[in-house]
Amino acid sequence: MSGGSTENSAISVSDLHAFCLDALTKVGVGESDARTTADVLVTTDTWGVHTHGAKALAGYIRRLRAGGLRTHAKPSIVAEGPGWAMIDGESGLGMVVSVFAMQTAMQKAKACGIGYAGVHNSCHFGAAGYYAALAAEADMIGLAMANDGPSVNAPGARGRVTGSNPFAYAVPTGEGDPILLDMAISTVAGGKVAAAHALGLPIPEGWLLDLDGHPTTDPAAFLQGGALTPAGGHKGYGLALMMESLAGVLTGAGLTRQILSWISDDPSQPTGHGAAFVAIDIGAMMPIAQFKQRVDRVCREIRSAPRADGVDRIYVPGEIEWERRRKALADGIVLPGDVLSSLAALAADLSMEEVGRARNR
Amino acid sequence: MSGGSTENSAISVSDLHAFCLDALTKVGVGESDARTTADVLVTTDTWGVHTHGAKALAGYIRRLRAGGLRTHAKPSIVAEGPGWAMIDGESGLGMVVSVFAMQTAMQKAKACGIGYAGVHNSCHFGAAGYYAALAAEADMIGLAMANDGPSVNAPGARGRVTGSNPFAYAVPTGEGDPILLDMAISTVAGGKVAAAHALGLPIPEGWLLDLDGHPTTDPAAFLQGGALTPAGGHKGYGLALMMESLAGVLTGAGLTRQILSWISDDPSQPTGHGAAFVAIDIGAMMPIAQFKQRVDRVCREIRSAPRADGVDRIYVPGEIEWERRRKALADGIVLPGDVLSSLAALAADLSMEEVGRARNR
Repeated sequence: MSGGSTENSAISVSDLHAFCLDALTKVGVGESDARTTADVLVTTDTWGVHTHGAKALAGYIRRLRAGGLRTHAKPSIVAEGPGWAMIDGESGLGMVVSVFAMQTAMQKAKACGIGYAGVHNSCHFGAAGYYAALAAEADMIGLAMANDGPSVNAPGARGRVTGSNPFAYAVPTGEGDPILLDMAISTVAGGKVAAAHALGLPIPEGWLLDLDGHPTTDPAAFLQGGALTPAGGHKGYGLALMMESLAGVLTGAGLTRQILSWISDDPSQPTGHGAAFVAIDIGAMMPIAQFKQRVDRVCREIRSAPRADGVDRIYVPGEIEWERRRKALADGIVLPGDVLSSLAALAADLSMEEVGRARNR
Repeated sequence: MSGGSTENSAISVSDLHAFCLDALTKVGVGESDARTTADVLVTTDTWGVHTHGAKALAGYIRRLRAGGLRTHAKPSIVAEGPGWAMIDGESGLGMVVSVFAMQTAMQKAKACGIGYAGVHNSCHFGAAGYYAALAAEADMIGLAMANDGPSVNAPGARGRVTGSNPFAYAVPTGEGDPILLDMAISTVAGGKVAAAHALGLPIPEGWLLDLDGHPTTDPAAFLQGGALTPAGGHKGYGLALMMESLAGVLTGAGLTRQILSWISDDPSQPTGHGAAFVAIDIGAMMPIAQFKQRVDRVCREIRSAPRADGVDRIYVPGEIEWERRRKALADGIVLPGDVLSSLAALAADLSMEEVGRARNR
């Protein structure tokens, strides 16, 4: 489907970025917003998180063409106070809305030490970690989260109750890359189950319940309406409701079942996602050099901890992803087959050359 | 050990509170601080979280007598901005320091919409949920967290790397009690493993690794230095470092191995715990009635979701604990044997009557 020999070729980060940018502008997204979206998606692919990278582009473009995502939406602050802002995403691309919102939270944090930005009328925002990392790059601690339509079980329930509600945080360090955790509150993200299904692979027990509420290793059960399990049982379930409260209830966004799927529901309708962003201005509270010395001490202690049998390294959260990113920037990215298929179909659909095709000829 | 016939008797909440208050004042804690501490511990017992209730009193009193906890410490703001404050706990009781800190975060939230209070020179603060619930009672969203000495494994490590770093949040509702999640980032709190050990019970596989890094069901391995597993593997590990960053690194508190055990380390030395509290003033951002309608909608949807086989109810986080509390206030609390033993030993040590003894005679 993806053109045979390209399937195992590395694609340069700039080629992938150019492809995303071109595809988005081709359907009417402005240059600046297209660039922001491409930045988010391609950075996510460089981290190796291909479920939330350029693979998602086809789905966003489908909604942009059908009108559920508005090409010229301009997110705006509709209410604010010294340390907070509420933002109407105007049904624009989740990446554009979320970058604006995190930047707003960071401005509020500059003023007050801590800032909160809530968002309604957004859409799927991709990898929460991108927005958290924006704060860390500015020497702030960043939190990013969103709500979503139900896909995850709650203890005692038979089916889907909460969204998989992504959550990320990032903390700047002195010696290395920011500490970066980007997680779904489900045991694994639904995208991983869908990717296994696309590859025809079974999934480990413990990830998914079928329609009858029984554990299954067949990823097809997810597409049939099965429920992901919450990470850590009641802990993941409880955290899901924190994301729902901060990103959904408080922001005026859609709630649980009100939120449409950006993949499978009517693309002419807004999805109604909410999101929330928190930034903490470290330098207001402690000299930034002192903070970094302290966080570096923690990271060094972790890396040098006694290792389990057969383990070469202990990683700080995000370290694997940042190392992948450096390798991707140097050597290009080897995209999985399902991503390449999606990009090839999108190229055909938009009458564009396939990503990296010029370089690989 | 605990006096035989009292072991299965319910003790009234007021008797338990009076016992805690008396014990604390007897070792020199002022009336107001003793009352605050008793409120936290007894509320925790009414929730049924006996690992973090009055059972802990003996350990705190040991440190109060030895000087590691200062009886007359007055937590104070040592630096602040519009939306944040840093608090020196002056090595006082964690409950006193933490109530002061959450109240400070709430004042900051009143001014800015969101407030952060960081704490250093604190001690073990008991149940994080108590402080989060303080915010919810004032129609705010509350978050509470702390760092702690290493007790939890990190993926790839052999032994203890992070603290079990408690985290709680609370959200006010209209129709019911606040949503309340209070969790350790370990699969289970160390106190549960210790309680199983005290009762001579094995623990489920998946909770604990022995000194060689192998899974074990023997709770004694925890006392020998074994490591708790992080909830959800890398997710719990990643969250532990968020708590460490917000409650430890940013606050100037002790970090990981610098923190002493409030139970087993030299009681004449401060433990050096840090903590962090965040409050969000809902009413600044959305009419509180509207917020409550929205959160109630989510709670109703959860409670009425299709149930798994054999399940009678689906609970919102905290619902079980609030129902236990109502029952405890009406009927008293049946404390587990290890709690009664601890209280009986403390009573003997302080030449006090045993808790509830007058009533049960």
